[in-house]
Amino acid sequence: MRQKIILDCDPGHDDAIALLLAARHPALELLAITTVAGNQSVEKTSTNALKVCSVAKILNVPVARGMHQPLLRPARFATDIHGESGLDGPELSSIAPLPLASQHAVDLLIELLLQSDGDIILIPTGPLTNIAAAMRREPAIVPKIQAISLMGGAISVGNVTTSAEFNIWADPEAAAIVFACGRPITMVPLEVTHQALATEEIIQRLRAMGRPVPTFVADLLHYFADSYRQVFGFPAPPIHDPCAVAAVIDPDIISGWEMHVAIETQGEWTLGRTVCDIYGKTGLPANARVGYGLQVEKFWTLLLDTFQAYD
Amino acid sequence: MRQKIILDCDPGHDDAIALLLAARHPALELLAITTVAGNQSVEKTSTNALKVCSVAKILNVPVARGMHQPLLRPARFATDIHGESGLDGPELSSIAPLPLASQHAVDLLIELLLQSDGDIILIPTGPLTNIAAAMRREPAIVPKIQAISLMGGAISVGNVTTSAEFNIWADPEAAAIVFACGRPITMVPLEVTHQALATEEIIQRLRAMGRPVPTFVADLLHYFADSYRQVFGFPAPPIHDPCAVAAVIDPDIISGWEMHVAIETQGEWTLGRTVCDIYGKTGLPANARVGYGLQVEKFWTLLLDTFQAYD
Amino acid sequence: MRQKIILDCDPGHDDAIALLLAARHPALELLAITTVAGNQSVEKTSTNALKVCSVAKILNVPVARGMHQPLLRPARFATDIHGESGLDGPELSSIAPLPLASQHAVDLLIELLLQSDGDIILIPTGPLTNIAAAMRREPAIVPKIQAISLMGGAISVGNVTTSAEFNIWADPEAAAIVFACGRPITMVPLEVTHQALATEEIIQRLRAMGRPVPTFVADLLHYFADSYRQVFGFPAPPIHDPCAVAAVIDPDIISGWEMHVAIETQGEWTLGRTVCDIYGKTGLPANARVGYGLQVEKFWTLLLDTFQAYD
Amino acid sequence: MRQKIILDCDPGHDDAIALLLAARHPALELLAITTVAGNQSVEKTSTNALKVCSVAKILNVPVARGMHQPLLRPARFATDIHGESGLDGPELSSIAPLPLASQHAVDLLIELLLQSDGDIILIPTGPLTNIAAAMRREPAIVPKIQAISLMGGAISVGNVTTSAEFNIWADPEAAAIVFACGRPITMVPLEVTHQALATEEIIQRLRAMGRPVPTFVADLLHYFADSYRQVFGFPAPPIHDPCAVAAVIDPDIISGWEMHVAIETQGEWTLGRTVCDIYGKTGLPANARVGYGLQVEKFWTLLLDTFQAYD
Repeated sequence: MRQKIILDCDPGHDDAIALLLAARHPALELLAITTVAGNQSVEKTSTNALKVCSVAKILNVPVARGMHQPLLRPARFATDIHGESGLDGPELSSIAPLPLASQHAVDLLIELLLQSDGDIILIPTGPLTNIAAAMRREPAIVPKIQAISLMGGAISVGNVTTSAEFNIWADPEAAAIVFACGRPITMVPLEVTHQALATEEIIQRLRAMGRPVPTFVADLLHYFADSYRQVFGFPAPPIHDPCAVAAVIDPDIISGWEMHVAIETQGEWTLGRTVCDIYGKTGLPANARVGYGLQVEKFWTLLLDTFQAYD
Repeated sequence: MRQKIILDCDPGHDDAIALLLAARHPALELLAITTVAGNQSVEKTSTNALKVCSVAKILNVPVARGMHQPLLRPARFATDIHGESGLDGPELSSIAPLPLASQHAVDLLIELLLQSDGDIILIPTGPLTNIAAAMRREPAIVPKIQAISLMGGAISVGNVTTSAEFNIWADPEAAAIVFACGRPITMVPLEVTHQALATEEIIQRLRAMGRPVPTFVADLLHYFADSYRQVFGFPAPPIHDPCAVAAVIDPDIISGWEMHVAIETQGEWTLGRTVCDIYGKTGLPANARVGYGLQVEKFWTLLLDTFQAYD
Repeated sequence: MRQKIILDCDPGHDDAIALLLAARHPALELLAITTVAGNQSVEKTSTNALKVCSVAKILNVPVARGMHQPLLRPARFATDIHGESGLDGPELSSIAPLPLASQHAVDLLIELLLQSDGDIILIPTGPLTNIAAAMRREPAIVPKIQAISLMGGAISVGNVTTSAEFNIWADPEAAAIVFACGRPITMVPLEVTHQALATEEIIQRLRAMGRPVPTFVADLLHYFADSYRQVFGFPAPPIHDPCAVAAVIDPDIISGWEMHVAIETQGEWTLGRTVCDIYGKTGLPANARVGYGLQVEKFWTLLLDTFQAYD
Repeated sequence: MRQKIILDCDPGHDDAIALLLAARHPALELLAITTVAGNQSVEKTSTNALKVCSVAKILNVPVARGMHQPLLRPARFATDIHGESGLDGPELSSIAPLPLASQHAVDLLIELLLQSDGDIILIPTGPLTNIAAAMRREPAIVPKIQAISLMGGAISVGNVTTSAEFNIWADPEAAAIVFACGRPITMVPLEVTHQALATEEIIQRLRAMGRPVPTFVADLLHYFADSYRQVFGFPAPPIHDPCAVAAVIDPDIISGWEMHVAIETQGEWTLGRTVCDIYGKTGLPANARVGYGLQVEKFWTLLLDTFQAYD
């Protein structure tokens, strides 16, 4: 039995790689891809998702477009990291995107969850706007969510600001709704994803496969490596979003602890911080399992094996 | 020429050790000790400072009592770490404290700074209430401050909350005033002080000196070790406050970078966080040198040599 | 040509009276009634709307249920004013509610607006959750809205707190989205509605009509009068929500000025305050016409004539 | 027995008139005048106070200069109302100010209160910075304060913003400290002071006295009238600050109610609002008597009689 999942994403280089992992790994059944404004506008992230599906011949998974902007705040994009298209680097201008689903992402999320037997894991790899909007729109979906495995947040130091990671910072109110929902949450923070560095050796192994999907991934990583070198001085780019998918495929890949996580929505300087109660000082019950360690080799084996399996 | 300093503190075990270092190190001329509410009430921290001076025969340095509570907020003490007296552990009940200075700490700070040639470094090791109150009361002191070397804050994870270190959290508004003052600031954060662990070996070396002051320090560390073991699970206690004194004696002991530091005063969950702009994302000019590395051996040599020199 | 309107409400005694006015006045074409959590839960306010339609034989207007709670905050009801049912007073237990529309209120709002020629005025008389959720879900509706005439806010003193009126306070984030939407807004604040007092003489005139709908209105007012006497010490109850409908029927009934209105979403004590820039001190452009005066006699004539016209 | 008072002020036109009332009314014994930044810088308000004393030959009352800026925030002046000097209008350039007291205002407040028998009423007519700083500096003064009669705040609509009155808005943190102090407070808000309009007839009566002090007051009012006409469109200027003095001389002059007053220090749009719990909705105990009505004729008689009595 494959684990049913919905990928809620804003591709985005690492989202695209997460999508390719989610769509093809034999342990997963990808029911839908929903898109959201984040790394770029929702029009662009939707087109990107559809082009990735086109490149990789992922033909049977609906892609539904979601929220244009955060619940309250204006949309702010990560153009410095992902470029103007949200997926700069690979030559995609000649790729025809697959058709978009007719439903809105929020409606598709609600429909799939209400129809389910409570056996769907949500994997959000962008701002949590769609998930939160669906929860507010139809509270009956909440108990139907098996679990949430999300890429977002940081225990110590963020990336978009010193205090906050981009996905949570972009829509902190949505994150606050999701973290308060009461369902099992795995939070995959920067502490984990900064271990998933796509070194030059990884890129070479992908290219060496000599096939379209691994080559496409290598092209994505090449651009992403440049971004991280220029903006953060990283020697190799961290592949954030696939970590949240890997945590569903093999929970042992990421070690971590249960703890209370609060989202700062009021701070003047700390907006969107994931306040992880690592010392248990708040006395509040755990609402998330916060990742800390990553089995790096196992992680890359899982990814490379999956990309190898594409035609 | 010894460097003139004023120690503004809330002893406190590590404050007491900082005081002993500040009073005796040959590179320093300790002009005054000012006390503030923090680890305990200002009555208790004042008595503690006076008893430490009595134990160590520091007879010529005025000790002036300062602010009873933070600028705005109610006083909150670190009783879990420092005990009911603020200096639990050593037997001090029979020690007669020296007499308190007649001046209020804020007045003494203003007087000493106004009379000075701009050659005094302030070393605050508690909440920054006295320093901020003095700056607001008499703005003319600000250009007279040579520099400030303060123990406080954290780049990544705090201690009193996940977001904040005790000294800054206790009076975030005062910290915001001080960090905005425009004078050179060295911030010695938890990242530095958590390297200054008073291991059992250190304690043994102090006891082996067989003299009153090193023994007193060993007694302080013994209690402090228990606190840190119980509250944080640390194997040995971090000697925070002496690091800020050491940074004045030998600036090379602490490595770090110039950057902008903002103080969060509005957050629901992140109050008192020192938001260190390590990636330069805010575009704001540096207002502090934030410590990161500590030359641990050099640090302990400096401390042990100084304590050895007490009669 | 009748003016097309959608009534978005949370009946609620005065909402019920607004509904009766909106459904029957010859100048209006009521396209839909959408309900929202506010005076009571959305289940109760929906049932109340459907029962009012049943009592008054309003058979051709869809009633669609909307948001269960504010965008971010927990739902808080005005039970002290409207009772446990949200419409306490009249004997409604034997009234069978009409059937609910199958669509969600937010979907119905989006559908009607997208299909329209930009000739629909929205009349919200409860928290603005549905309107804001629709705007965020489908930004293309915003330019399709002809105008918004809403009951909510206060220039000077609120009712649920000294600073805030209930509808805005209940979902201040939704209100902030709506007031920033850029379409013409008429805000009907407490300053206006507190002039629309349903005196004993008004109630007598309704009863004297000797017919079901006026009698039903009189029963509503009787209960409402008790609430306002007990909670606020008012001599007669203010009929808030019909004022927002009256402002569409006859804009001259309410005098007012164009000005900037901001919604306080951050205050510790002032949450949900409608900050009306009556002196033009902010320099911000007007985003609403804020009502101030009410032609009281004309208002009551309009209401009584309409209720008289019900079979 | 005259009532001992200290006037804490920031002259300012109406402060100057309050000073003249406080210094001369036979029911009062003015122990000191303390100045604060507010309508203008503390240098200017101090000079203004000293010049007013010079004009009126008030020779035995110490004038002590206080805080340069609010506890936390930058100083912001009411230049649009009071002009560049803070007391524009009368020709004062040739008036030599009396000498300033050597003590800081905060020290003088502490000294006078500690020495007193608890029989001093404080009358603050500017931002509450001095009073709050004194309370924090020496908590022992608080029980020594007989009462506080302050001009500040508004029940409904402010003047510097729609939400806030200038004195409270200028230093909301100080106001929060003062309103929480536990001593009896009379708050004289804009609702009262806007009844104290210095009409042309009043100015004529002052001029008709044909003597220096009444003429000086008339000159002040002439300028003040222009300010209020231009900034607010008032037909005559409200003489705010003397109302707080009058409330001490004759408590019946101002009617009002006991209630809880909170100060908004967090709001994005409502900073410095005095949140008066007029409906008792917070359940918090009263901490102030909030004025509402003014016996206008009695008020002017009191003022004119006092000014007439100056040589």
